[in-house]
Amino acid sequence: MSPLDYTHILTKAVDELSDSQSYQGLFHQHKEGEPLPSGKSLQRIVELARSILFPGYFGNSTINSQTINYHIGVNIEELFELLTDQIQAGLCFGVENSGIQEYESPCRATSAKLAAEFISHLPEMRQILATDVEAAYYGDPAATCFGEIICCYPIIRAITNYRIAHELYKLNIPLIPRIITEMAHSETGIDIHPGAQIGHHFTIDHGTGVVIGATCIIGNNVKLYQGVTLGAKSFPLDDDGNPIKGIPRHPILEDDVIVYSNATILGRITIGKGATIGGNIWVTESVEPGARIVQRKSKDF
Amino acid sequence: MSPLDYTHILTKAVDELSDSQSYQGLFHQHKEGEPLPSGKSLQRIVELARSILFPGYFGNSTINSQTINYHIGVNIEELFELLTDQIQAGLCFGVENSGIQEYESPCRATSAKLAAEFISHLPEMRQILATDVEAAYYGDPAATCFGEIICCYPIIRAITNYRIAHELYKLNIPLIPRIITEMAHSETGIDIHPGAQIGHHFTIDHGTGVVIGATCIIGNNVKLYQGVTLGAKSFPLDDDGNPIKGIPRHPILEDDVIVYSNATILGRITIGKGATIGGNIWVTESVEPGARIVQRKSKDF
Amino acid sequence: MSPLDYTHILTKAVDELSDSQSYQGLFHQHKEGEPLPSGKSLQRIVELARSILFPGYFGNSTINSQTINYHIGVNIEELFELLTDQIQAGLCFGVENSGIQEYESPCRATSAKLAAEFISHLPEMRQILATDVEAAYYGDPAATCFGEIICCYPIIRAITNYRIAHELYKLNIPLIPRIITEMAHSETGIDIHPGAQIGHHFTIDHGTGVVIGATCIIGNNVKLYQGVTLGAKSFPLDDDGNPIKGIPRHPILEDDVIVYSNATILGRITIGKGATIGGNIWVTESVEPGARIVQRKSKDF
Amino acid sequence: MSPLDYTHILTKAVDELSDSQSYQGLFHQHKEGEPLPSGKSLQRIVELARSILFPGYFGNSTINSQTINYHIGVNIEELFELLTDQIQAGLCFGVENSGIQEYESPCRATSAKLAAEFISHLPEMRQILATDVEAAYYGDPAATCFGEIICCYPIIRAITNYRIAHELYKLNIPLIPRIITEMAHSETGIDIHPGAQIGHHFTIDHGTGVVIGATCIIGNNVKLYQGVTLGAKSFPLDDDGNPIKGIPRHPILEDDVIVYSNATILGRITIGKGATIGGNIWVTESVEPGARIVQRKSKDF
Amino acid sequence: MSPLDYTHILTKAVDELSDSQSYQGLFHQHKEGEPLPSGKSLQRIVELARSILFPGYFGNSTINSQTINYHIGVNIEELFELLTDQIQAGLCFGVENSGIQEYESPCRATSAKLAAEFISHLPEMRQILATDVEAAYYGDPAATCFGEIICCYPIIRAITNYRIAHELYKLNIPLIPRIITEMAHSETGIDIHPGAQIGHHFTIDHGTGVVIGATCIIGNNVKLYQGVTLGAKSFPLDDDGNPIKGIPRHPILEDDVIVYSNATILGRITIGKGATIGGNIWVTESVEPGARIVQRKSKDF
Amino acid sequence: MSPLDYTHILTKAVDELSDSQSYQGLFHQHKEGEPLPSGKSLQRIVELARSILFPGYFGNSTINSQTINYHIGVNIEELFELLTDQIQAGLCFGVENSGIQEYESPCRATSAKLAAEFISHLPEMRQILATDVEAAYYGDPAATCFGEIICCYPIIRAITNYRIAHELYKLNIPLIPRIITEMAHSETGIDIHPGAQIGHHFTIDHGTGVVIGATCIIGNNVKLYQGVTLGAKSFPLDDDGNPIKGIPRHPILEDDVIVYSNATILGRITIGKGATIGGNIWVTESVEPGARIVQRKSKDF
Repeated sequence: MSPLDYTHILTKAVDELSDSQSYQGLFHQHKEGEPLPSGKSLQRIVELARSILFPGYFGNSTINSQTINYHIGVNIEELFELLTDQIQAGLCFGVENSGIQEYESPCRATSAKLAAEFISHLPEMRQILATDVEAAYYGDPAATCFGEIICCYPIIRAITNYRIAHELYKLNIPLIPRIITEMAHSETGIDIHPGAQIGHHFTIDHGTGVVIGATCIIGNNVKLYQGVTLGAKSFPLDDDGNPIKGIPRHPILEDDVIVYSNATILGRITIGKGATIGGNIWVTESVEPGARIVQRKSKDF
Repeated sequence: MSPLDYTHILTKAVDELSDSQSYQGLFHQHKEGEPLPSGKSLQRIVELARSILFPGYFGNSTINSQTINYHIGVNIEELFELLTDQIQAGLCFGVENSGIQEYESPCRATSAKLAAEFISHLPEMRQILATDVEAAYYGDPAATCFGEIICCYPIIRAITNYRIAHELYKLNIPLIPRIITEMAHSETGIDIHPGAQIGHHFTIDHGTGVVIGATCIIGNNVKLYQGVTLGAKSFPLDDDGNPIKGIPRHPILEDDVIVYSNATILGRITIGKGATIGGNIWVTESVEPGARIVQRKSKDF
Repeated sequence: MSPLDYTHILTKAVDELSDSQSYQGLFHQHKEGEPLPSGKSLQRIVELARSILFPGYFGNSTINSQTINYHIGVNIEELFELLTDQIQAGLCFGVENSGIQEYESPCRATSAKLAAEFISHLPEMRQILATDVEAAYYGDPAATCFGEIICCYPIIRAITNYRIAHELYKLNIPLIPRIITEMAHSETGIDIHPGAQIGHHFTIDHGTGVVIGATCIIGNNVKLYQGVTLGAKSFPLDDDGNPIKGIPRHPILEDDVIVYSNATILGRITIGKGATIGGNIWVTESVEPGARIVQRKSKDF
Repeated sequence: MSPLDYTHILTKAVDELSDSQSYQGLFHQHKEGEPLPSGKSLQRIVELARSILFPGYFGNSTINSQTINYHIGVNIEELFELLTDQIQAGLCFGVENSGIQEYESPCRATSAKLAAEFISHLPEMRQILATDVEAAYYGDPAATCFGEIICCYPIIRAITNYRIAHELYKLNIPLIPRIITEMAHSETGIDIHPGAQIGHHFTIDHGTGVVIGATCIIGNNVKLYQGVTLGAKSFPLDDDGNPIKGIPRHPILEDDVIVYSNATILGRITIGKGATIGGNIWVTESVEPGARIVQRKSKDF
Repeated sequence: MSPLDYTHILTKAVDELSDSQSYQGLFHQHKEGEPLPSGKSLQRIVELARSILFPGYFGNSTINSQTINYHIGVNIEELFELLTDQIQAGLCFGVENSGIQEYESPCRATSAKLAAEFISHLPEMRQILATDVEAAYYGDPAATCFGEIICCYPIIRAITNYRIAHELYKLNIPLIPRIITEMAHSETGIDIHPGAQIGHHFTIDHGTGVVIGATCIIGNNVKLYQGVTLGAKSFPLDDDGNPIKGIPRHPILEDDVIVYSNATILGRITIGKGATIGGNIWVTESVEPGARIVQRKSKDF
Repeated sequence: MSPLDYTHILTKAVDELSDSQSYQGLFHQHKEGEPLPSGKSLQRIVELARSILFPGYFGNSTINSQTINYHIGVNIEELFELLTDQIQAGLCFGVENSGIQEYESPCRATSAKLAAEFISHLPEMRQILATDVEAAYYGDPAATCFGEIICCYPIIRAITNYRIAHELYKLNIPLIPRIITEMAHSETGIDIHPGAQIGHHFTIDHGTGVVIGATCIIGNNVKLYQGVTLGAKSFPLDDDGNPIKGIPRHPILEDDVIVYSNATILGRITIGKGATIGGNIWVTESVEPGARIVQRKSKDF
């Protein structure tokens, strides 16, 4: 029996899979003329932002102080165009999928305005990222210089994507911020929701497995280790049994908190200023400022 | 001393590394005319399956309900060709490497038959994936719509790869299913063995660090959090000291079980219907239906 | 208002971001004529090394025993050129960023010499990797053959990158080794510092979330599971409050140790020969040879 | 003197070249939101058209008669989208550059209408191309089958691009038709203006150097050889000394004419039905039907 | 009217274009499992041959005399595989399209045998190409060295493709040789039929527009200029009006002939040893050895 | 007989082709550390130059007058780096292959100096190209605007490459200029030697087959048609029978000359100011200013 004999099996599958009953809820019909959310385009947006924020490390590596403005100029212009497209894609997606309509007109003009606003925040974004680089450097005896941190520490990739995404999140753009933080999640294993609020001098060592929930509030000079969860304990359902959106349900970490590896902190509790949470523990109640919590001793057997 | 002076060092290394003694067990001699397992090709296979299962989200994004059958038709045809090749590659690999010969003739005809069989299961695969999307949506207050789940939640990527791989695993195709689940493992940090059995409405929140072993049986409506291990406790060795293959050694999770982050459940134990396993704990004995298990309280110091 | 109206916002951002005050510490000025550290080039270096070490599995898949030396010859030559470049890039980076100057002349000649030295160690690197493949195979009942291990087990990717990086680390090349291990970290979730010392027959099952610190010493036949941390407990600061570099601060694991999933072992302690560390626990004191440590029992509630 | 010392030379050149005086007439300012004429996109458009017109030869080569409609469906849809964009780009270009405004609104809606109209002519375009393939086959004893003609004869590439471009030319779309025929000119050395009118069963042997001017009218069953020019003899200027556009100035070739290699036929003359023009000659006066014209004998010396 | 309104126009075109009546003679149905003639693959084949024949100029440019055999070994192996595929594609195409069946079994084994035979002729092909390089060098006062000839003279590209194609032509492989010479035709404007016979020390200056027909016989030390045609005067038809294949109908050029630019030589005539044909003339009768033919004087007017 | 049986044929070919006797004169040994002439890099150089010279038409198409300096700045910097490399490659090639050593030190510093000098001439190169665009526009009634000329007329591609190459030729850089004009030759069929001297307002209509030799001198406002040769009649040999280099041997065309299609003008003759040369003729003697030369009348037969 030659492979052509399978044509009827294949065409039967095509027919079933093209039946509109079969793809309800799993189908995205695109409106002609609207840009599409594009992973590839968002990847480029993040690359452009990174090459603007850390000049000479990413992208235009032959840059010098006399020609830097040419490079930043070209990158900002490309960023503006791509971001305008992706913001418009996000706004359209929001309107169609969630009935969210933050802006009267989710058109190109609104998107361009929001993209320009985002770009106007890049200088302060660079300032706060500089503090994150410092925190990573001073927190790791194995680090040899700032350059090594910027080039290869996963936290820098994760926190940069988060700070970009958070800025877009504050502009009420649907979908796009989450795709950007999920890119960093895939690359680093660090999952920071774009809605979380994070102060300056923030760092995470190693990072794989860290989860920071949507309503977390994190102060300044906070340090986490790999595997730390800042999650929700449970969430109230509405009358239809759907989770109620927007209720604060993740922890608050005040300034100078340290959380060691694989600790799990759940619910809208507060870890007080300067507290230390030991590794591999499960914390569901607030912790006093300055306190130190550790796991009970293990036993031999 | 110019770089050319190192030629003798390089050619010496070439000679040592080309010596057949030196690569025993690490060398794969390919038979002429047989297709090769190809990561790139499998990546394309998964992309095609994704664009068929979730039309408009991946791949042909300009699709509409009147032209959807063209797109699905072309994608199914490409899928059939690539999959026939990769199935043949897997069957040949199995025969050569493990002496496994499930089918009398690991030739193109058998492979095409298996590829067609796989494709005939795509409609039901879409149905069950629709329940997984629902489970992810109703389980996360931060989710704004089904579309966001499909576009950026890592569980959708991981469970799609798993459901594809499991279907191929049931057809007794060596190697290929594992490569497909490892792709998702690399992208999401979620490691589901293609041999595991998983019911409908399955979800994992965040996901990094989850491990689901080869002989796991998971019911319907089960939810896991990041860092959960469903592993083996130990495994018996045969007389030569090699692990005995195929013995059930991973947990059974009945319907409606929830397992919180970083919990470790080991061995062929049963977590009863509706049980809840708290985070960061280590479970090696069966748990009653409806039970809730948590970590002992931590202490201050 | 047309998008052109945002030109003044964009050019203002360009000016601010091109101001040399704003990028202090975040700017890398490249010296003309020196090669740059390149992720793409290092990716190719690792691919070349992999295709040399495991012939027929990666890269030139149509290789046979009579033509293998052509392929290894060409790959070694390309490896030599790319590595010479990247070593030079690393040496220059070290001099500029950390004032480290291991070699009198961080020029092309020194780099070529170091690249040739690295290549001369490839045969022994293949020998020890063969033991790692064995360890992975005998440690997993789900593995069907060596070929499956080499093709798709994340530990092989991680340990190969580590062994390459460690060899470069021993040659005192800055930056490059860390970039290579971080590539594997991103792909596998396994974070092994290139400075760690690891014996033969080493394996990690599943692997996501494993951290192995810079001063770890790991014996032979050691097996780790996913989520294991071999970390530092704390580190002394110098008079300026900076962490003191180079102090041994990570654990020593003697031969035949097994550490189960999500265990955290911290500080310069010794886990004695043949000891077993149970999952999800926190170990900060040395453990006797042959001992078995487990988590305290969880409780119901 | 290090390369950095040239920075002032480079920045001086940048300043001069950015001065608006210096680029007058050579600068194309793009209006935001309008698509751009794109060589890459037009290349794809031609490829798509070719794979639709000659199914199985270009593009989707695994096509069979049961699945052909999937492939044509997908290709038509992609063609429609890309062509809508490029038609819009052409209309905008026309308005800005030449003040040509064929349509009231050079917007997306008009462009989509014109793209759909173009597509509705593809079936008849295929019919006439079938006659061109025949003419090439019966005119060359070296041809072994229709397939060889379609795969590798330059005339097929040139005449296909011409027939596509001519259809767009008839829709009064500026710029785009000419770019399409110039692509074929670059690939084959055959330069056919999109405005020329050419009957069925047309062929050119070898083809390099052939020129067919904008106002040529060519009947059916005409055959040209390489190097033939069908050009203008001279053209009247208007009062400003500019050439007057749109005056018929190229030859008319009636049915069944043959023109041998390197012949040059100039001006609005008529080559009568069935006439034969010998090679390397220069014809500026009309030729009777059935006549045969040749070069005067060469002489020895 | 939105673009979606054109869906019925598009689907109507799809239906018409998918109707089997409409694509008769223009459709290539591919047999499953047979390789396809591939322009991309043939391009690679020519590149590989070029990098083998002119080592260090094309492809592996860092080659040195001690490592050249690695590079040639790898290139020969890749060439063998790709060529085996393309030869098989050509044989299958021949059987299906022209009923030509040169070999009993147009299968992989035959194709591999022919590919190996081709490769065994590469050394002598290099020898004769060396004479062509010499001829080009000594024939052009503007040439500065052999390297310049090899790198950028179009004749070298054209003659290399021809000599490769002619070798395949002598092995009776359909289609493939013609595609290879048409590649050079497109790149250089030089159209040499793979069936022509050409001696050593052959060169063409500039080259654009040269045509050398299928049954030409060209001696040694022959030089042509741009625009020269060696064509057929006319060709007899069989009883069905089809051109009779395989009759000698192109010129014979004996040794040491020179033909100046744009000369046209037609029919099975002989240009005697050492004759010189002036430019822009039309020759249809044999020319004595040593003769010089030029155009009649032009006149003023 | 399996394909592996051909291994001995292949390895025999490898041995013969690796024998240093066999590649004499055809082998280019590269010196480690020196850049290589690279077609790909030169293609990019030409693209960069084009996007600088005709802003908005090629490359950065979204450019506007306020951001143009960013784009030109970035392009000039990239051009400087690539050109420095390729100039160095050309100088090294010249020294090795032809013993030409124009500069004392063919090192990076010299190359950077020459690259900067080239760049300083770009503004005047733009001025003269503006006159060529004008000449093409006013010479073709079919042209609709300057933009159409710049986008798709082959003369613009050819004359731009020539003017770039001629500038490098005047700096005595070997090889590179010729590669650049040969690129245009391949794309347009117009072969202009980089050594030719060409005035302003130069144009060629259609262009395929035009040849302009190395020592041509062409005045202002000259227009050529397709197929025109400005070549050498013969060239004196030295005592070894090699052509003597550098002797003026191509025509001089004074201002305002027009040469019609396929005319051949040979030798160091002068075509006087304002003369017109008819098509398809062969001119080997000087022509008076203002004269008009045409072919003798053809005859019927």
